[in-house]
Amino acid sequence: MKQADIGLIGLAVMGQNLVLNMNDHGFTVSVFNRTISKVDAFLESAAKGTKIIGVHSLKELFTTLKRPRRVMFLVKAGQAVDELIAECLPFLEKGDIIIDGGNSNFADTDRRALDLKKQGILFVGSGVSGGEEGARHGPSLMPGGDQEAWPAIKGILQAIAAQVDGYPCCDWVGNGGAGHYVKMVHNGIEYGDMQLIAESYSLMKKALNMSNEEIAATFKAWNTTELDSYLIEITSHIFKFKDKDGNYLIDNILDVAGQKGTGKWTGINALDIGMPVTLIAEAVFARCLSFLKDERVKAEREMPPAVVEAFQGDRKEMLEAIRLALYASKIISYTQGYMMMRQAATDYKWELNFGGIALMWRGGCIIRSRFLGKIKEAFDKNPSLENILFDNYFKGEVEKCQAGWRKAITFAVEQAIAIPCISTALAFYDGLRSARLPANLIQAQRDFFGAHTYERLDKPRGEFFHTNWTGTGGNISSSSYNA
Amino acid sequence: MKQADIGLIGLAVMGQNLVLNMNDHGFTVSVFNRTISKVDAFLESAAKGTKIIGVHSLKELFTTLKRPRRVMFLVKAGQAVDELIAECLPFLEKGDIIIDGGNSNFADTDRRALDLKKQGILFVGSGVSGGEEGARHGPSLMPGGDQEAWPAIKGILQAIAAQVDGYPCCDWVGNGGAGHYVKMVHNGIEYGDMQLIAESYSLMKKALNMSNEEIAATFKAWNTTELDSYLIEITSHIFKFKDKDGNYLIDNILDVAGQKGTGKWTGINALDIGMPVTLIAEAVFARCLSFLKDERVKAEREMPPAVVEAFQGDRKEMLEAIRLALYASKIISYTQGYMMMRQAATDYKWELNFGGIALMWRGGCIIRSRFLGKIKEAFDKNPSLENILFDNYFKGEVEKCQAGWRKAITFAVEQAIAIPCISTALAFYDGLRSARLPANLIQAQRDFFGAHTYERLDKPRGEFFHTNWTGTGGNISSSSYNA
Repeated sequence: MKQADIGLIGLAVMGQNLVLNMNDHGFTVSVFNRTISKVDAFLESAAKGTKIIGVHSLKELFTTLKRPRRVMFLVKAGQAVDELIAECLPFLEKGDIIIDGGNSNFADTDRRALDLKKQGILFVGSGVSGGEEGARHGPSLMPGGDQEAWPAIKGILQAIAAQVDGYPCCDWVGNGGAGHYVKMVHNGIEYGDMQLIAESYSLMKKALNMSNEEIAATFKAWNTTELDSYLIEITSHIFKFKDKDGNYLIDNILDVAGQKGTGKWTGINALDIGMPVTLIAEAVFARCLSFLKDERVKAEREMPPAVVEAFQGDRKEMLEAIRLALYASKIISYTQGYMMMRQAATDYKWELNFGGIALMWRGGCIIRSRFLGKIKEAFDKNPSLENILFDNYFKGEVEKCQAGWRKAITFAVEQAIAIPCISTALAFYDGLRSARLPANLIQAQRDFFGAHTYERLDKPRGEFFHTNWTGTGGNISSSSYNA
Repeated sequence: MKQADIGLIGLAVMGQNLVLNMNDHGFTVSVFNRTISKVDAFLESAAKGTKIIGVHSLKELFTTLKRPRRVMFLVKAGQAVDELIAECLPFLEKGDIIIDGGNSNFADTDRRALDLKKQGILFVGSGVSGGEEGARHGPSLMPGGDQEAWPAIKGILQAIAAQVDGYPCCDWVGNGGAGHYVKMVHNGIEYGDMQLIAESYSLMKKALNMSNEEIAATFKAWNTTELDSYLIEITSHIFKFKDKDGNYLIDNILDVAGQKGTGKWTGINALDIGMPVTLIAEAVFARCLSFLKDERVKAEREMPPAVVEAFQGDRKEMLEAIRLALYASKIISYTQGYMMMRQAATDYKWELNFGGIALMWRGGCIIRSRFLGKIKEAFDKNPSLENILFDNYFKGEVEKCQAGWRKAITFAVEQAIAIPCISTALAFYDGLRSARLPANLIQAQRDFFGAHTYERLDKPRGEFFHTNWTGTGGNISSSSYNA
């Protein structure tokens, strides 16, 4: 009976496809699902004629597994994972390995790895990206947690992962919640990439009055440039797709974007660790604003934008400016994402391999792109690169984009078209390369009203000064009041 | 012995000043501090000749209080509050009232109010704003929590609060953590206001080459316009302030802005409840970027901004454009803050009095301004106003600002000067009044790669559709995978 290489629990689309992928690579997989009819249905359909084993209970599942017993969860993140762990515990033995392949919060993964370690169970939290297609034919996998588990799962995970230039898009990320953290940042970057493409679409449609076919052709052309990526590719397909009624489907889709939490988590963690990941935050907020459909409809009625005359300039030139704006903004977004991971590695004591992360994202996942190969190269050249913009290639690329980037933003400002992510990217770029920012005024204000003290340019860092700005009031420095 | 109207624990600057303020209004205050020498020092200095009673233990403190015994905490937010509650518990009796006047997280206040209620203790979390000057001569107070406590503390709190047009800047906010929530949003708005002023300063100094005296004069003049506010007022003083060496102090203050958490909490909560409070988030991120001083110095060296020729236009006109940009952005920021409170009231089941909140902020606190009187008027006209921009006055004001706002942003984009908050405010304004946003593309992408489904414009809300975009792959809708 102990014939299965791995067990998988949770037969929604991702779980089913991962199982089929494992089966293709010669692994025997034992599968279970809480709604047991799903197990039978799967065996009768997609899994028919495979070596996949269906079981009807958790107890049975564990009896079918080779040692060390490996079981992967593909269930809803959150409480369901804790519940499932609890249900598995009676059947688990020392050295067994649980891999959580859902989109769990990295802090939960940290906690679970620690708790299970005490009981001798090796817990791994692995980000899985690539959607249903990726899961089926090669996802990007970002495993982290108890490193003792890695030798026992490396073979399976690297075999089923996407392969790029002979390398699997899967490697060990780090201890504790590191794998799910990197997946979270991946998803945040995905939010940013999608919003940047949406903003470009908005300019094409609203300001340049382009048809869906023209927009599709533009994205197709862009996909042969530095922007070559999965998301640009599917975008060009989307604009050509016709509904059953012969109309373009895109025009009938409601402009209310859903979200399931990982983008939000990225924004929250960025605020928590104090890194200016502005582009992802704006992308999440853009989805929040899209959600307020009724309020927007009313606002447009109450405050209609002025009628701007039709664009008279050179459309080809403006499209190239928009492309450069998208490209430069994308470089900024990845720069911010890497700054965030750098800070997290320090705060959470992870040894992250930044080039390896680029390689994991290079294929398989939603943000896969030629661009990530360039990030990998940047870290190959300098493994301790502190900021992607300090790499000569990227520094030069952004410089090359600058004029077009500024032109596209000015155009959007004149046309009253919201491009929050492209705009915030430029503000970040101009802010980052400001040795002096106006934050001296903020410090002066804080010291004025709250005695919060300030540091001085003409004194060493770490010395704090308070000024009695008004000549009245006390000289007590603030110690417990927070502003 | 039971002669004191209220006890106060925590004699840092805010605590001392609140005690003196209460004493001025005829209340007898009993004071305690963990470091007991501070009690004696206070009685020997600022409290000399007053009716203030110093005590050397918590036990003694409670013996000096009239019933119902009221004690206010002015200690560091977080664990210190929980510890102090635990230390007080042995001396507390049913009906006693604790007021936490620190900057506690609203969720902690929620929890504490609930826990103490079970023991018959009435817990109030009150935001206190106004810095040391406000605490001394009239702060803005935002109490919430156990409403049973309100009649017993209203007299003291409203007496010591700032008064504007005969109204105290203090009223009951709501149950649970509502008071601290409103204080949190206040602080977030404060971050935004400060950053907007800093961005204006950046344009004046870097792009218009203005001297400190000219900048001071400009803010002084602005303080006679719609921008009339405490922060603009102190800003004009700051630019005139000379150090002992005769140089302008502002030029020697390090451009690294500190933060103590409430701005960050506002951004985090905005993401959590799904409200696009972009301006405050950008203001927090601007402080984060300021913090990366060494990285910025290196970035400026690596990527020096192009030399832009000196401004040749009409400086007065450009300054007016900057003023309008600041004013419009401020309206957006308050709009977003109120949207956030509206959502919080729904999510957390608070009955917030939005006009009353404007009145509480109208005086005493750091963001006090003439402007808040206008917000109060808007809610007087329409107590259920869903969005500040739907009020005719504000709608008209923003409209009036538009041309200058866009001009100032275009100028900053050309000059490579980062003004993230002014920029994001415009993007929000243009996004809000877009009945159609490009989020339909995001939904199409999500359905393409993850079968996340979408709603349609030609179907009722709540019906979700999945398209097999590529003609291959399954027709399984996503249920557990999150992108």
